[in-house]
Order: sequence, then C-alpha cells, then structure tokens
Amino acid sequence: MPDLLYEFPLNEKTRTYLRTETLLKRAEAQLGCPEIWAKMDFFNALFSLLDVVERGDLKSDLIKDLEKHEKQLVVWSQHPGIDNKALQNMLAQLVTMTAALSQANKLGQTLRDDRFLAPIKQRFTIPGGNCCFDLPNLHQWLHQNNQKTTQDQQNWLDQIFSLKNAVELNLRMLREKSRFTLVAAEAGLYQSTVENVELLRLQLDADCPYYPTVSGHKNRFSIRFMQPDDEQGKTGCQHGFNFKLATC
Amino acid sequence: MPDLLYEFPLNEKTRTYLRTETLLKRAEAQLGCPEIWAKMDFFNALFSLLDVVERGDLKSDLIKDLEKHEKQLVVWSQHPGIDNKALQNMLAQLVTMTAALSQANKLGQTLRDDRFLAPIKQRFTIPGGNCCFDLPNLHQWLHQNNQKTTQDQQNWLDQIFSLKNAVELNLRMLREKSRFTLVAAEAGLYQSTVENVELLRLQLDADCPYYPTVSGHKNRFSIRFMQPDDEQGKTGCQHGFNFKLATC
Repeated sequence: MPDLLYEFPLNEKTRTYLRTETLLKRAEAQLGCPEIWAKMDFFNALFSLLDVVERGDLKSDLIKDLEKHEKQLVVWSQHPGIDNKALQNMLAQLVTMTAALSQANKLGQTLRDDRFLAPIKQRFTIPGGNCCFDLPNLHQWLHQNNQKTTQDQQNWLDQIFSLKNAVELNLRMLREKSRFTLVAAEAGLYQSTVENVELLRLQLDADCPYYPTVSGHKNRFSIRFMQPDDEQGKTGCQHGFNFKLATC
Repeated sequence: MPDLLYEFPLNEKTRTYLRTETLLKRAEAQLGCPEIWAKMDFFNALFSLLDVVERGDLKSDLIKDLEKHEKQLVVWSQHPGIDNKALQNMLAQLVTMTAALSQANKLGQTLRDDRFLAPIKQRFTIPGGNCCFDLPNLHQWLHQNNQKTTQDQQNWLDQIFSLKNAVELNLRMLREKSRFTLVAAEAGLYQSTVENVELLRLQLDADCPYYPTVSGHKNRFSIRFMQPDDEQGKTGCQHGFNFKLATC
C-alpha cells in the first residue's frame, strides 16, 4: 500500500484553498455518476463550496498569489538557459487566470442566484431536509436521464472554472516549493522552527498506527502523533519513529 | 422507463418516518462502498439521521403505531379462515419490535455518545469542515482497508436496528392501506376531501413534464402541478391530465 498523505495548512488562506480543493474534487468525483446518492452528494459538495468561497478574502488572496507567481516568472525569464517558451506559456496562463478572476463577480454568485439551485441549497442545510416531499422538483431532476443531469452538473461547474484553476495552480506552486525529507519524531512529538511556511505535508507508512495532529503558525509548529484506542477514543503515541515531511 | 413515484406525508409523524427511511436507505447504499466520498456520505447520512430521530416524539409514535398493528392482528385472528400461522408469526415480530424499542434509551444515543463519532459529527455541520486537517483521525480511518471500515459501518447501523425495523414496518403497513387509482387533474390542480389520510402517493409517467406540490392535512388536500421552465425556475401547469394516486 502507498504512503498515506496528510496536509496541514498553517494559515487561514491555505486552509480555505484546501477546503475549496477538497470540495471541488468531491463534486468532480460525483459528476456524471448515475446513482441518486452520488447526485445528492454532488449538491452537498457544491453547496458547501459556495459557503466556503463566500467567506473572507479568498478572491483577493488568489489574485495576490497569482501576481506573485507572475513576478517570479518574469524574474526567471531573465536567467540565461531558461526554457523561455514554456515560461511564456505559463505566464500567459497566469495573466488569463488573473483577468478571469478579477472580472468575475463575487465568487460563485451566479450559482447562489440560480433559480433552480437557490431554494434547494436552503433545504440542504436542514438535516434530512431534502427528501422527495421537501423538493419534488429536485426529485424530478434526479430521475431524468443521466446525460441531462450530467450536462447540468457540468454547466454549474463551468461557472466556477476560474476559481478552480486559480486554487489548483496556487496549491500546485505551493506544494512544489519543498521536497519530502525523512525526519524523526521523539516520544510521539516533532517540533521545528521554520520561515514563512504555509503548508505541512506528511507521508506516513500506510500501516502506521499513528495519525498526526498539528499546532503552529508560519514560523513554528509541533506535530503530535496520536493513536486510536480500542474504545474508539485516542491516546498519545510515546514512541520514536521516522516519517517524511515537506514544509512548503 | 417506469413511473416516477412521489410521496407526500400529511402529518409530522409520517414526515419524520419518511426522513428516517430516506437517510437509512442512503447510509445502507453507501455501506461497504470503497470510494472515500461514499464513506464520507455514509457519515453525512448517519449524522443527519441522528439529528432527525433526536427530535420530537418519534419513539413513542413508533411504539403507538406498532401497538395499533398488534391490536388489529388480534382482531383478525378471531376471523375464521385466516392463516393463523403467518399471523402468529407477524404478531411475535411486532411484540419483539415493541419490546426492543421500549428498552432502548433515547434513539441513537449510543452513537451520539460514541467517542469516535461524536467529535466527527460536530465537524460535519460546518460547510467544508471535514477536511483531512480538521479530522486527521477520520482521514486515517477512511484509508484503512475496506473490510475494516465496512465492519465499523455495520456495527454503527446495528445500533439503530430496532429503529430501522419499526420505521420500515410502520411505513409498509401504511403504504399497503391503499391502492393506486387513476384520477384526473384539471388545469393542473387536483383536490380532494378524505378521512384520516397520512400519506399521499402519486405515480406519474416518467416523461411527464410536471411535478406535484402538495398542501393539506388528514381530511383535505390539494395537489398543484408545476413545470420547470427554461430559466431553471417554474411555472404552474394549466393542462388537464391523468395520474395515479393512493391515499393511505
């Protein structure tokens, strides 16, 4: 079995990026699935996403990060021996993405205002509140042929395409900032002082009995390893062991 | 394509029965599925279920209904020519079910108190709040082998077995109270006066462009048919057409 990857953001911006990425992946995984529950879960993911991207300064954070990458690329383009074609290509992509995001209204607002989605979204916040009798129009939609529902799902996702692109690119650039190195936890604890780190990435053996919990911020963090116990609770790990860590 | 079935409860008790049934079906559909999203949706269904069954008088409603069926069976057992063995069998089932429900604590309380589930349930109420970094122990659980996670899921469902049995039996008895008959909507509307009806069941052609919306109570109801319009909104149906209706 492959290693199990854990990621921990060290600031609010990266936290929101990761939430957005997770929800987009979930919606895309359910896109086109013929089962009713998968179609319902597509909505769950989409509506959670609309709530997550409504908060805070996501749009300006994304644009700021894209502009930072743009400047970096311009600096690199001065270097001799750089693959200038690939770089120009990437630069053009960044400019298009920044423009698309800047032109967009509030992120996801067209979906929030959608006459079909808006009343359904409201019912999804109530536990068990999206039964056939709560939303007979959704019940009808769910039972159309799969081609039609997939087309609708794709249309909705298309409306947050620039969000998806920007989040994916920023996270890719962030993850590529650092490589995994083998480090040692002592008595179930690993601590470190770092500089301007936004994301911790951990790789643990798939059969490692421990899972990590993290506290910290951009300059200092500690990872404490825990173990689920027999009573479905947890106890702290007291052992030393090695794991792979990347500080991005 | 088969007809599309819509069900509308006419009282709060039946509404809760149907919500419970829907969520149980969803949890059971996701039980054992290897995909991460399906496992997450299992939790979504389970946690919504725990919220739904916590409210109101579900337990006493279920017991009252089971006792009503029991009395009815005792009356039937006096009739000559009845299949007494089947009836005794059914009667024994009812007595066991009532006893199991009566002995149980508050419905689903063992799951609400579970040391693994309780902190996870809390995070599931926050949009996008169940990422890897929010719940690293859940992340670990999700990536175990499927046999282990399925076993856990089954253990959790086993703890609400008496609830499931009672809801299913009561809904089956309710649905069997009445047969479908062909009725006519005029100008997109059907109204009727009835006696002690708890549930309306409608069968519409799968390609019927309309969906029903219902208002009413045990003695009187009206069904208005709507049609999704091109702008993802809805307009009232103005046509007459036939559909199948059962008033249970």
